[in-house]
Amino acid sequence: MERLLITGAGGSLGRVCRDRLTHLARVIRVSDLSDLGPAAPHEEVVACDLSDKSGVEALVAGCDGIVHLGGQSVEAPWDVVRDANIEGVVNLYEAARKASVAPRIAFASSNHAIGFYNQSQRLDANAPTRPDSLYGVSKVFGEALASMYHDKFGIETALIRIGSCFPEPRTHRMLSTWLSHDDFVRLLERIFTVRRLGCPVIYGASDNSSSWWDNREVAYIGWRPEDNAEVFRERLDAEIAPPGPRDAEALYQGGRFCSDGIHED
Amino acid sequence: MERLLITGAGGSLGRVCRDRLTHLARVIRVSDLSDLGPAAPHEEVVACDLSDKSGVEALVAGCDGIVHLGGQSVEAPWDVVRDANIEGVVNLYEAARKASVAPRIAFASSNHAIGFYNQSQRLDANAPTRPDSLYGVSKVFGEALASMYHDKFGIETALIRIGSCFPEPRTHRMLSTWLSHDDFVRLLERIFTVRRLGCPVIYGASDNSSSWWDNREVAYIGWRPEDNAEVFRERLDAEIAPPGPRDAEALYQGGRFCSDGIHED
Amino acid sequence: MERLLITGAGGSLGRVCRDRLTHLARVIRVSDLSDLGPAAPHEEVVACDLSDKSGVEALVAGCDGIVHLGGQSVEAPWDVVRDANIEGVVNLYEAARKASVAPRIAFASSNHAIGFYNQSQRLDANAPTRPDSLYGVSKVFGEALASMYHDKFGIETALIRIGSCFPEPRTHRMLSTWLSHDDFVRLLERIFTVRRLGCPVIYGASDNSSSWWDNREVAYIGWRPEDNAEVFRERLDAEIAPPGPRDAEALYQGGRFCSDGIHED
Amino acid sequence: MERLLITGAGGSLGRVCRDRLTHLARVIRVSDLSDLGPAAPHEEVVACDLSDKSGVEALVAGCDGIVHLGGQSVEAPWDVVRDANIEGVVNLYEAARKASVAPRIAFASSNHAIGFYNQSQRLDANAPTRPDSLYGVSKVFGEALASMYHDKFGIETALIRIGSCFPEPRTHRMLSTWLSHDDFVRLLERIFTVRRLGCPVIYGASDNSSSWWDNREVAYIGWRPEDNAEVFRERLDAEIAPPGPRDAEALYQGGRFCSDGIHED
Amino acid sequence: MERLLITGAGGSLGRVCRDRLTHLARVIRVSDLSDLGPAAPHEEVVACDLSDKSGVEALVAGCDGIVHLGGQSVEAPWDVVRDANIEGVVNLYEAARKASVAPRIAFASSNHAIGFYNQSQRLDANAPTRPDSLYGVSKVFGEALASMYHDKFGIETALIRIGSCFPEPRTHRMLSTWLSHDDFVRLLERIFTVRRLGCPVIYGASDNSSSWWDNREVAYIGWRPEDNAEVFRERLDAEIAPPGPRDAEALYQGGRFCSDGIHED
Amino acid sequence: MERLLITGAGGSLGRVCRDRLTHLARVIRVSDLSDLGPAAPHEEVVACDLSDKSGVEALVAGCDGIVHLGGQSVEAPWDVVRDANIEGVVNLYEAARKASVAPRIAFASSNHAIGFYNQSQRLDANAPTRPDSLYGVSKVFGEALASMYHDKFGIETALIRIGSCFPEPRTHRMLSTWLSHDDFVRLLERIFTVRRLGCPVIYGASDNSSSWWDNREVAYIGWRPEDNAEVFRERLDAEIAPPGPRDAEALYQGGRFCSDGIHED
Repeated sequence: MERLLITGAGGSLGRVCRDRLTHLARVIRVSDLSDLGPAAPHEEVVACDLSDKSGVEALVAGCDGIVHLGGQSVEAPWDVVRDANIEGVVNLYEAARKASVAPRIAFASSNHAIGFYNQSQRLDANAPTRPDSLYGVSKVFGEALASMYHDKFGIETALIRIGSCFPEPRTHRMLSTWLSHDDFVRLLERIFTVRRLGCPVIYGASDNSSSWWDNREVAYIGWRPEDNAEVFRERLDAEIAPPGPRDAEALYQGGRFCSDGIHED
Repeated sequence: MERLLITGAGGSLGRVCRDRLTHLARVIRVSDLSDLGPAAPHEEVVACDLSDKSGVEALVAGCDGIVHLGGQSVEAPWDVVRDANIEGVVNLYEAARKASVAPRIAFASSNHAIGFYNQSQRLDANAPTRPDSLYGVSKVFGEALASMYHDKFGIETALIRIGSCFPEPRTHRMLSTWLSHDDFVRLLERIFTVRRLGCPVIYGASDNSSSWWDNREVAYIGWRPEDNAEVFRERLDAEIAPPGPRDAEALYQGGRFCSDGIHED
Repeated sequence: MERLLITGAGGSLGRVCRDRLTHLARVIRVSDLSDLGPAAPHEEVVACDLSDKSGVEALVAGCDGIVHLGGQSVEAPWDVVRDANIEGVVNLYEAARKASVAPRIAFASSNHAIGFYNQSQRLDANAPTRPDSLYGVSKVFGEALASMYHDKFGIETALIRIGSCFPEPRTHRMLSTWLSHDDFVRLLERIFTVRRLGCPVIYGASDNSSSWWDNREVAYIGWRPEDNAEVFRERLDAEIAPPGPRDAEALYQGGRFCSDGIHED
Repeated sequence: MERLLITGAGGSLGRVCRDRLTHLARVIRVSDLSDLGPAAPHEEVVACDLSDKSGVEALVAGCDGIVHLGGQSVEAPWDVVRDANIEGVVNLYEAARKASVAPRIAFASSNHAIGFYNQSQRLDANAPTRPDSLYGVSKVFGEALASMYHDKFGIETALIRIGSCFPEPRTHRMLSTWLSHDDFVRLLERIFTVRRLGCPVIYGASDNSSSWWDNREVAYIGWRPEDNAEVFRERLDAEIAPPGPRDAEALYQGGRFCSDGIHED
Repeated sequence: MERLLITGAGGSLGRVCRDRLTHLARVIRVSDLSDLGPAAPHEEVVACDLSDKSGVEALVAGCDGIVHLGGQSVEAPWDVVRDANIEGVVNLYEAARKASVAPRIAFASSNHAIGFYNQSQRLDANAPTRPDSLYGVSKVFGEALASMYHDKFGIETALIRIGSCFPEPRTHRMLSTWLSHDDFVRLLERIFTVRRLGCPVIYGASDNSSSWWDNREVAYIGWRPEDNAEVFRERLDAEIAPPGPRDAEALYQGGRFCSDGIHED
Repeated sequence: MERLLITGAGGSLGRVCRDRLTHLARVIRVSDLSDLGPAAPHEEVVACDLSDKSGVEALVAGCDGIVHLGGQSVEAPWDVVRDANIEGVVNLYEAARKASVAPRIAFASSNHAIGFYNQSQRLDANAPTRPDSLYGVSKVFGEALASMYHDKFGIETALIRIGSCFPEPRTHRMLSTWLSHDDFVRLLERIFTVRRLGCPVIYGASDNSSSWWDNREVAYIGWRPEDNAEVFRERLDAEIAPPGPRDAEALYQGGRFCSDGIHED
């Protein structure tokens, strides 16, 4: 690629991408609301609020790839979710539609789009959504918007329902949802090099023994996660108490998001 | 029911409901942005803009049933869609959550939530959404929000993907999508009398010979549409030209919504 | 047929069969623990306790068809269920295996073999069983035994999961589960005249609007129920209170069987 | 349509079509190897051997619709099957490809393309083929060829797996497979008037109570068969002996085709 | 766990469990009809006949986990099967229900619950049962009973359809059904440590190349078998003759159980 | 086996088989139209044109296994395809039927039998065929013929839909379709040693990361491919240009076969 845009580049996943996707494009354009520090020689740093329509248009122009990590990444009051994840995503896709070259997009969706499924249920890409929060609903919106821009305008998006992307699993639930940084980077490599992407739903989780999700339908992407949260089980057992059997953390795929109430302003 | 709220009561479907659902509740509360004329003895008329959070809260209070027809019902510029169908629906469900008695809701979703499926494809309630417009995406949002309020707060909603609800089918595509007023009224009767509703997806179409949709999964509702658009075929053939075989009207379930562009402000 | 055996002929379904299946065989052999009155000219009356192995052997000998209604037909203490529905069914199939001509069997299984499914779920013949009582478990046993005798010895059985077979539906739940006497008789006619029966699961319910069950897989039998519990809805609404939305009667396909405890001796 | 070609117009189905499809086109072109008698004013009579490539090219030219009934319609020695149903169908599709306007084709496939399924199995359009004869294999070939010409050249074909199309059912097996002449004509009307046809598999059987086949996937065609072989059951029972339970006629959907050997030259 | 009960502890699998599950609980209570030798310091030895209701009640009291291997493990006369596997299992679940703390149960079901499937068929947890023997029917009974106690009383059970659990595969059929002792132990570890178990069907087989069974649906358990019967193929080929292609051993998943007759007393 | 016939032994796959299947039978009979050189001590060399019926009969006589690689292996004018792949395969199966011992057959079918599926679609053995060429249609014919000879005469065939069997992948599409020679040989070993084969569809591809095909249904064969085209990706990227995103090579599973026209004579 000529230019890869990383939104939300100041967040934890954004920093991973900024560091490790440099081989995917000649120029890496990084963006966030927060300070991103100085640009490296191969970088462009662009501050942008995703709810600013014309700002996003400028941000996207000239990029043939986008890793969209920006926006709100956990539950929040409705206004916050809406501005970042509804308005912001509309702005992003409108900008992509208007760009001279349509960029390919890796969209950070979330397991919270299907969070109310039971942990004993096996899901593939065709499972109807069951969001667990306003945040989860906003991710369903983003997936639907991307689907429409694909069917109507040919813009390709990988809808990555990220589980829990951290250096290591932090809770017992993450033994099922963990996505290692290495596997995430390998997934993004595949997304930007596969000849035809389409608009697939991909569960963003490593090859965890206790998996709930089945990526068989998208094997054509060629992504084979290599890590497994299981190697951290003993340490987790030693360090933290597991959830009680009736806690949302033990019942639902979305964990505590399912028991949290609406965040009032 | 004690009190049934009909939003969008000034629209064409709203007028049908205002006239014909009087047997379902002691009081019918009708609401719209437009003038609804004087209230009948069994009616309450409440003007309300759905994007007005506290107004919606007052509107919903005291209602044990809601037929939600309000909002934007065709493609429009994003701001219009967002205010009516995103903000408005969030306000509605927040008001329902805060009400002393949770109302049961019949939500007017749309075939445009799955409009990009081919007309030769058979869909049931589990088909992944494929919206065809910003309007269609807003309906996916509404369905997802309702699903979350059901899983999390127990609010029951019928997600009716209305095809084309008119006195008679107006286009050849409507031979497949037509929903007669009688069948629509019968459906609402079932929705408000079935013991347990849950949050099912229901395709709102009559018993048309050329159907694309399969309501088998929700037979428990007990709704059996009785009309069939087929009886209008000859008249349609005589009166209007059918779409060309490569027109969106002949290709996609959502018809011309699939070929329309984004409505710029 | 030469001789059709009806077990449990003294019960309410048994009396229906005794009266209305006379055209299916030259001789009707009726059996029960209770007094069956005098035999009509075309009848043989044989008293028999199903837990009596040699008695059952004599009962079955010479019959080319069996309508097996005998045994325990509601929840009961384990000993009662076991003797009638476990021991009794083993005796029946062993007798059938040893008979010179293997009889075809219509086995009165029950909706309580799948009673713990939610009323919003649609079941076909392949749904895994979810019994709701010791009685329901005994019916799963009977179905499994019949399946084995079919695979191993070629004995054909129709596994009829009878809903609620009464002159009229008696509760709101029966609007979904009702099987009219006429439809039941028509089903038995088809079972004993179809060229090849195999060992199919058939849901024994009329063509009720509010159905939970799908007999599509066994259309080859040629049974099309003609009655519909819906015509009784108004009368039911007028006469009895519907169950509360959290009652087992409104939640589960098996109704109150799902909330009843174990019957201690 | 301007001109509808009926091949095999001298056969029994051909005569039905010649008589009853006159409203579908301005000109009906009829063809067969056998003498077809004089042409009616709206007709063109063209003798043609389907294995004659250039003859078929001339036959097809100028036709915008084809009902392809020609060829071998029961099991026969390989040479006969090959010339009529392999070579003949290749000639037909090559002629269609080369025509200035691609005709829409109704292809008389056969239940013998899936004849080895058991009579207790329920099939829809996606069931893998299981032919029961060289004839059945030739029909699988024709379906595959039509599929390729659709995917590659846009030629639309209805693949009608005809059951048993006679004035009345003649055997007990036909209680399941019968297609009335009226239903066949109604099906052809739908095939030539539906806006988009594609290349669907359609089971050609009336609305028989004892059905094995499910056309739900092709409801978009708008065909609803109205006849039912069941009304002939009593007469059949009175007039002919049913097959024994181990006869191919009672075991397999293809009936005796499944027990017949290969026809040696 | 505080106390893990192992029934059938004197059998071959029971001895494996007695030796190798000591890390799962503070106390291991072992039980059998046969002599179990002296108790180790961490053990309690309790003799018990499973058909003795009050004996079983005492046996189960105080146990928070049960590995239920007791009962009849191959085909036998009906009385033997009934007392051990019907009566015995009812006693076990009644005891579990009455216990102050409901134990979690690993139930040794069997491949003979689905033995009549062909060896070329692929099964997952939702396949309808097809037992091959009275023994197999008794295992279907046990699974159904466990399902009911889970739905009704919340008792969790792993329904392990054990293939062939031996140190090494002994027949060619076991190349598909073999469960190594190591994999069995790892499975039990997962069953007793997973946060929520539910009542899943698990096929108890190692990671054999020639597998018939698919545990994908229960990946949430986190069990990944590591052994593969394939490594024994050459030795088996050298040592014993394979079954003929028409032997039950080569045809059915249940092997010779499918060809054995009923064991008369 | 006593004698294994390899047809098409002069082609590239034929030579692999001739060299590496010597352990499968006492005698290897090799056949082709082209010169096969001198016979090795364990070999019989028989020249044969597959369209010569009696020649094929002699060729097949005395063989208990056949690897059928002969015939036309890419698109060609119809006459060529017909003689080699229609006529030739009928001759082969007729010869097999007439042989004193029915041989087991490994039939080289092709991915071009399903070539018109999109590269983002996941196929298993039950996917309806979608051939991409006359060649592909001829392979559907061969599969259907084999299925009929299995159902009717008990002849077992493995229908191997070979992807791209070369020493190394030669195009980017082959990263998905590649079948290594080693994996092909291992597959043939399994086909000729599994106790019961039946007539399964097997996708002939290695364990490629970017796979489109799912052999889960035929796991009972016991074949586990070990190679992965992924290891050649970097070299391919360096050596050849990938196809454009709208090329048939990037769109369809059958690649350029989907865009090629009919080969006129």
